[in-house]
Amino acid sequence: QRRGIPEAILAEGKSVAQVVELAATALETTDRALITRASDEQIDALESHSESTATTLERRGTTVLMQTPDYEQLSLEATVGIVTAGTVDGPVADEAEAVCADAGATIDRVDDVGVAALDRTLDQVERFREADVLIVAAGREGALPTVIAGLVDTPVIGVPVSSGYGYGGDGEAALAGMLQSCTVLSVVNIDAGFVAGAQAALLARTVSNARSDGP
Amino acid sequence: QRRGIPEAILAEGKSVAQVVELAATALETTDRALITRASDEQIDALESHSESTATTLERRGTTVLMQTPDYEQLSLEATVGIVTAGTVDGPVADEAEAVCADAGATIDRVDDVGVAALDRTLDQVERFREADVLIVAAGREGALPTVIAGLVDTPVIGVPVSSGYGYGGDGEAALAGMLQSCTVLSVVNIDAGFVAGAQAALLARTVSNARSDGP
Amino acid sequence: QRRGIPEAILAEGKSVAQVVELAATALETTDRALITRASDEQIDALESHSESTATTLERRGTTVLMQTPDYEQLSLEATVGIVTAGTVDGPVADEAEAVCADAGATIDRVDDVGVAALDRTLDQVERFREADVLIVAAGREGALPTVIAGLVDTPVIGVPVSSGYGYGGDGEAALAGMLQSCTVLSVVNIDAGFVAGAQAALLARTVSNARSDGP
Amino acid sequence: QRRGIPEAILAEGKSVAQVVELAATALETTDRALITRASDEQIDALESHSESTATTLERRGTTVLMQTPDYEQLSLEATVGIVTAGTVDGPVADEAEAVCADAGATIDRVDDVGVAALDRTLDQVERFREADVLIVAAGREGALPTVIAGLVDTPVIGVPVSSGYGYGGDGEAALAGMLQSCTVLSVVNIDAGFVAGAQAALLARTVSNARSDGP
Amino acid sequence: QRRGIPEAILAEGKSVAQVVELAATALETTDRALITRASDEQIDALESHSESTATTLERRGTTVLMQTPDYEQLSLEATVGIVTAGTVDGPVADEAEAVCADAGATIDRVDDVGVAALDRTLDQVERFREADVLIVAAGREGALPTVIAGLVDTPVIGVPVSSGYGYGGDGEAALAGMLQSCTVLSVVNIDAGFVAGAQAALLARTVSNARSDGP
Amino acid sequence: QRRGIPEAILAEGKSVAQVVELAATALETTDRALITRASDEQIDALESHSESTATTLERRGTTVLMQTPDYEQLSLEATVGIVTAGTVDGPVADEAEAVCADAGATIDRVDDVGVAALDRTLDQVERFREADVLIVAAGREGALPTVIAGLVDTPVIGVPVSSGYGYGGDGEAALAGMLQSCTVLSVVNIDAGFVAGAQAALLARTVSNARSDGP
Amino acid sequence: QRRGIPEAILAEGKSVAQVVELAATALETTDRALITRASDEQIDALESHSESTATTLERRGTTVLMQTPDYEQLSLEATVGIVTAGTVDGPVADEAEAVCADAGATIDRVDDVGVAALDRTLDQVERFREADVLIVAAGREGALPTVIAGLVDTPVIGVPVSSGYGYGGDGEAALAGMLQSCTVLSVVNIDAGFVAGAQAALLARTVSNARSDGP
Amino acid sequence: QRRGIPEAILAEGKSVAQVVELAATALETTDRALITRASDEQIDALESHSESTATTLERRGTTVLMQTPDYEQLSLEATVGIVTAGTVDGPVADEAEAVCADAGATIDRVDDVGVAALDRTLDQVERFREADVLIVAAGREGALPTVIAGLVDTPVIGVPVSSGYGYGGDGEAALAGMLQSCTVLSVVNIDAGFVAGAQAALLARTVSNARSDGP
Ligand SMILES: Nc1ncnc2c1ncn2[C@@H]1O[C@H](COP(=O)(O)O)[C@@H](O)[C@H]1O
Ligand SMILES: Nc1ncnc2c1ncn2[C@@H]1O[C@H](COP(=O)(O)O)[C@@H](O)[C@H]1O
Ligand SMILES: Nc1ncnc2c1ncn2[C@@H]1O[C@H](COP(=O)(O)O)[C@@H](O)[C@H]1O
Ligand SMILES: Nc1ncnc2c1ncn2[C@@H]1O[C@H](COP(=O)(O)O)[C@@H](O)[C@H]1O
Ligand SMILES: [Mg+2]
Ligand SMILES: [Mg+2]
Ligand SMILES: [Mg+2]
Ligand SMILES: [Mg+2]
Ligand SMILES: [Mg+2]
Ligand SMILES: [Mg+2]
Ligand SMILES: [Mg+2]
Ligand SMILES: [Mg+2]
Repeated sequence: QRRGIPEAILAEGKSVAQVVELAATALETTDRALITRASDEQIDALESHSESTATTLERRGTTVLMQTPDYEQLSLEATVGIVTAGTVDGPVADEAEAVCADAGATIDRVDDVGVAALDRTLDQVERFREADVLIVAAGREGALPTVIAGLVDTPVIGVPVSSGYGYGGDGEAALAGMLQSCTVLSVVNIDAGFVAGAQAALLARTVSNARSDGP
Repeated sequence: QRRGIPEAILAEGKSVAQVVELAATALETTDRALITRASDEQIDALESHSESTATTLERRGTTVLMQTPDYEQLSLEATVGIVTAGTVDGPVADEAEAVCADAGATIDRVDDVGVAALDRTLDQVERFREADVLIVAAGREGALPTVIAGLVDTPVIGVPVSSGYGYGGDGEAALAGMLQSCTVLSVVNIDAGFVAGAQAALLARTVSNARSDGP
Repeated sequence: QRRGIPEAILAEGKSVAQVVELAATALETTDRALITRASDEQIDALESHSESTATTLERRGTTVLMQTPDYEQLSLEATVGIVTAGTVDGPVADEAEAVCADAGATIDRVDDVGVAALDRTLDQVERFREADVLIVAAGREGALPTVIAGLVDTPVIGVPVSSGYGYGGDGEAALAGMLQSCTVLSVVNIDAGFVAGAQAALLARTVSNARSDGP
Repeated sequence: QRRGIPEAILAEGKSVAQVVELAATALETTDRALITRASDEQIDALESHSESTATTLERRGTTVLMQTPDYEQLSLEATVGIVTAGTVDGPVADEAEAVCADAGATIDRVDDVGVAALDRTLDQVERFREADVLIVAAGREGALPTVIAGLVDTPVIGVPVSSGYGYGGDGEAALAGMLQSCTVLSVVNIDAGFVAGAQAALLARTVSNARSDGP
Repeated sequence: QRRGIPEAILAEGKSVAQVVELAATALETTDRALITRASDEQIDALESHSESTATTLERRGTTVLMQTPDYEQLSLEATVGIVTAGTVDGPVADEAEAVCADAGATIDRVDDVGVAALDRTLDQVERFREADVLIVAAGREGALPTVIAGLVDTPVIGVPVSSGYGYGGDGEAALAGMLQSCTVLSVVNIDAGFVAGAQAALLARTVSNARSDGP
Repeated sequence: QRRGIPEAILAEGKSVAQVVELAATALETTDRALITRASDEQIDALESHSESTATTLERRGTTVLMQTPDYEQLSLEATVGIVTAGTVDGPVADEAEAVCADAGATIDRVDDVGVAALDRTLDQVERFREADVLIVAAGREGALPTVIAGLVDTPVIGVPVSSGYGYGGDGEAALAGMLQSCTVLSVVNIDAGFVAGAQAALLARTVSNARSDGP
Repeated sequence: QRRGIPEAILAEGKSVAQVVELAATALETTDRALITRASDEQIDALESHSESTATTLERRGTTVLMQTPDYEQLSLEATVGIVTAGTVDGPVADEAEAVCADAGATIDRVDDVGVAALDRTLDQVERFREADVLIVAAGREGALPTVIAGLVDTPVIGVPVSSGYGYGGDGEAALAGMLQSCTVLSVVNIDAGFVAGAQAALLARTVSNARSDGP
Repeated sequence: QRRGIPEAILAEGKSVAQVVELAATALETTDRALITRASDEQIDALESHSESTATTLERRGTTVLMQTPDYEQLSLEATVGIVTAGTVDGPVADEAEAVCADAGATIDRVDDVGVAALDRTLDQVERFREADVLIVAAGREGALPTVIAGLVDTPVIGVPVSSGYGYGGDGEAALAGMLQSCTVLSVVNIDAGFVAGAQAALLARTVSNARSDGP
């Protein structure tokens, strides 16, 4: 029995009926369903399902978390810092936050500290240092994870965001920049908030276990 | 004072004299120098320097670790698993191993368990589960990190290796595959053994600290 | 007279009138018409045509098979296994299935055995071994054909599916991964269910003939 | 026990010592070793090994086949046609031929029938029809597999060759052309003669078995 | 005064008002306006303009030719052959035909002779030989211009068409294939029917002048 | 019997022996051999062959023309203008010139008139107008064919040259620029001097025939 | 306090509410707000806000400039020349013009002087020489900045525009061409009128300061 | 007569004889020759020429400046700041420095202030502010120009350097990052130190003239 592995239903590319069915199965077997990249139509159907079955449903942008009354919320002794460069990076960070919260981690969210206004970034260094792991989402040239990783020892997971235009504007400039970073980063795919959140959750669980087990 | 941040000198693109000078400075200020992607000529010069200054020098492929007699080896209470798919992935994994060892982590190295011979992969699942974090290096289609991450809850860092030929053979097939993984991975650049090792070292330090601090 | 060559009308990029006309001609000359990638509007028009001419019409997703009462269904003594990694790969596999069924092969369809849940894949190995040829459709990183081809001697045709997002998400990660596979595969273009099905049908016909002719 | 799966040692990217060791192991366990993409230096070492151990060694370009006196040559009741467009496609086709011959198939090799001289192509149509499966290697625009597959019902495996220059000259024009073919093809990676040969060998084995089993 | 240079207004990316204004100016100064890639809305506006000013308007797909009563139609003593591989290549060839007709060349149009049905191609070789220059439009793998150029001495201009899907399906496979052609071709951009037609018109004018001037 | 089709042996990717054999065959059957992209070693071997067989051999850069005493030089009543932007475009233009000269066209060569010094370009407009067809070779941004085609009615064939560095420096910037040209051009592959020359030769032959036949 | 740095709100990818809020904040803190790439819906909301707060609002295409009555318009003693190749480049140049005007520079706008009609370009050389810095926007092959920079000593900033189609038609041909320019240019991203305008404004301010300070 | 336009001979791709001849002509007509990207062999030949003609020769890496005794060194009242991120960016910055020095600008060079050690960058902000224009060269992810441009009002020209490895390591990550910068930059091609230097020289000349002319 694998506990703590973050699982989600990727709604994109599935029909409304398929998404509802997958969510219903997840609720039946695990008392919980996390759905990402859901369309309005898919979310409406999930809400109907939720109402008719008395499960709770929480929506954050295109991410939906459903739980039955039997669900026991996990709780980890570990903090995930989630940082965005600008307004447009919000939805991707939201996806990551939903997964980490679902996994029971404490979240410390810091928004709008992109490198164009470096003072705001530098002001937050202490908060960045207190997290066990950092998720940093940034579009355009994606320099923020590099700059933060150069300031702190906390491990940083970079998330490139498709918020630019022109050459490299679909997130490939940010992805390439993070892969080439002259500081130490690991990276997930463009807009892959879910994957960053899930990887951070796995790390938070490892740290939490270490903390519980003690020396 | 930042302790435990993995630092290294990337020898590629620098002259022999530049590499030796940078290593000498590192030895003076930190009693240690880690040099990656060194050419034979650069390594010869580092060996001469080592002999004339009575520092130790250890070489693993193109990676060189130098320490003065004053260097205090760090020691972490955490294990990094390092896994390769095939023979050609060895040198990239060696680079990661050098960094993690230097950072004081326990290393568990598992070689040649690529998905073409799935039995060998499955045989090692228990070892994979015991690591605090896994580095998995694979070239060609780079499927190994995906398969391992589907079998265990340990966080996996994938390292694409440029060991193929034809379309995507310079490591881009493996990179794209790891970024698209249907299991949960974070990724570093093609052949970036150092970055994977350094990120694993940061994670190992976090876990080790958690273990020391206890509940 | 070439018998058994799979032929189809690719509806994409053609007007409704053109598709109906091409189908009518095919029905007149061969008592059969196979139309792929048809839009709803194109299918409506084909249905009208079918009703007014008393041909049968069978629809599977965007693939349409029409036959006159005179059509003699081919039958081959050979089995094509058709395998999908996940829900979103279904329509592409459906296209392949329509062509193979039309060619008279026995179909063995296995769905949802992607590598993220390797147990389900391993459970089906015996079925994979019994097919004469396997079509394996997978999106994201496209690792399933590689894993299956490493487990069985049956020839595998990989079909990359455009079901991802971010870098390589339009099917190019899966395509590159299958071309770089460290096991033995041949490959068709992204989403090219028709081509995979037609190639499998040619192989099934060759095997069926060999079986009929005997030793 | 998997019989008949084509296996080979890809020498590229390995040291001389590693290649010899892998070959020695293969000879010990299977009485046979097939080495592809070997350098002159690697081949010299294999020849030394061969002489000192009294195994036979046969070389075709950069492909080497070694067998112990105990090796029992397989024999299949099936023919693989191997076709090249031009002189420069020869070595890639040779690699395919080595694998198929090793697997026991009958080979029918047709060289230099590229589409620039279409008469020569058309002259061979009957031979193409008699093969159970065709491997067609072509560089530049890679049109030959498309043209042949339009003329015969025999299944065709296209092998793009990196024999061009300028835009797409590294084999990507040929690869893209084969993937976009308006006739029915499956494809392997650029210059992947081994994969094409191994896939053809699997198909030949399937056909041969069907022929033996009879109706 | 430059006579005979083909000029056209590219409607794509311009507002309705801009297109009408540019057409009006062309009609005033040259008694003629050729508009390509016009949207339905742009064509409606051009038709209104045409009616209110008593100019003639001829539409071929998205290409529109307008002439005042004063326009003197040019006439060249030269023939442009225009060939398509399949139905979907029609609109691109139409654009080329509009330009050549406007320039006064004789047009010989041959449709649907793609290489998947090589007999139909071979049947037309004599017609291809009689043209002074050939425009050959083909999508998918774009092999038709290569095959035709290998059969005749007439100069061939290849036009890649964006009629595929998957890897290279936006016309890049066809473009790359034509640039790599092992026969002699010159090429225009993807879907650039206008450019092919205009280049053919320049050549036809050169040939026509040579014919008029005589030996 | 196809007369006047330019044929050449592409030496690149062939062994010395293969090139000599292909040249010998061409000399025997057509009294002439044109070899392009020959290495020094290949040229040495061709020179030895030439001496031992009393054929003439003329070398222009990496292009070699051999003729037996029986060869009847063709002569066309048509002029091909060959224009280069800078010094580094010379060898590509030389290849084109060799083919056109071999085909019997009159050559008018104009060197070093790149757009950075526009006066020199403008000074030659009259010469450009007198050619029947123009070949314009340019690297870097490849703007010269566009500028010339805007100044004259003569048909222009653009040849992109791989003379840059950085992004697009392998000739792809020039290729893309010529394909996007806002004037009328047809284009050949990067560095494809032979193809440009051969296409110009076909056009020159057509014009020459028209001139001979007269009105 | 940084004065004169051009700042703008990039509306693309933001919600209507977010854009209005960011504009309101900018107006409060700096008495001015510049919004780029605004949708019709976003502009409507900004107009409502403007009316209800008695700020002025000026719209140029998708660029919006809002100012409170307290705003003190800057004025620079420097001229920015803004040049377009064709009609479709207008909106990108408008964006640049809005920024430069906002920064207080004198603007000299020259439209429709693309290289296809070189006379019109040459006619304006004196105006180009009188500017302190030139912004030159061009799509398709993007040759205009190269040609202008070869004629004058004024520094030129090239702006590639995504106005083409086919290979490189999304602005990448123009971008690559400007980066490869054989004259001296610096470049901004595709369609990045704002960035070109802002860079020119910084330069204009530097020149204006130099002029004010005197010798 | 164009004064002050930076001109140089790009040695790459030219023969030794061609480079010497071009340098000799430049010396004769302008008393000066600037040669970039020269090989050792080319530099040797230039040195021989220099000695035999009593011109001075100064070499900085692969850049060579030659002057006759008659040459009058220009002098500008303007400062160009030249900044590098790391050791490997040095040669590219050297090329820029040679051009600016030749043009008569004052140079302020700041090395090794890459974002991985942000303190060192922040320490230099005042120097950055005092320059009239800044050239900032950076490889890997190329974040330095973005960070500096966010801190100062001085116009910044970014130069991407090809100093990475893996995905985007040939300078394309840095180029894309600079084009996507969320601060204001203009950019030159990868490794194009000459172009950055020449553009800065044009700007310095404009500023210097403004300073001389005064208010
Ligand atoms: N937003 C997302 N991005 C990436 N992977 C996801 C996302 N949401 C779910 N997944 C994972 O994608 C895999 C395939 O999901 P599904 O197609 O729903 O079976 C599962 O392992 C999910 O955990
Ligand atoms: N879905 C499909 N994918 C790839 N090829 C197809 C598909 N459907 C039909 N084809 C083939 O595409 C070729 C061109 O089809 P058409 O444009 O209908 O003449 C024919 O040889 C068809 O057999
Ligand atoms: N020339 C080749 N091209 C592609 N794959 C090959 C080649 N030669 C061997 N292989 C296969 O590549 C895989 C990895 O080979 P190795 O790295 O030697 O373990 C094995 O499954 C081999 O069968
Ligand atoms: N059209 C534009 N193109 C590029 N950058 C812009 C544009 N408009 C605003 N910006 C800049 O983009 C950065 C991010 O903008 P914002 O997302 O609004 O905070 C700011 O520094 C703006 O100055
Ligand atoms: Mg750090
Ligand atoms: Mg896992
Ligand atoms: Mg297998
Ligand atoms: Mg066929
Ligand atoms: Mg021909
Ligand atoms: Mg012209
Ligand atoms: Mg200039
Ligand atoms: Mg700034």
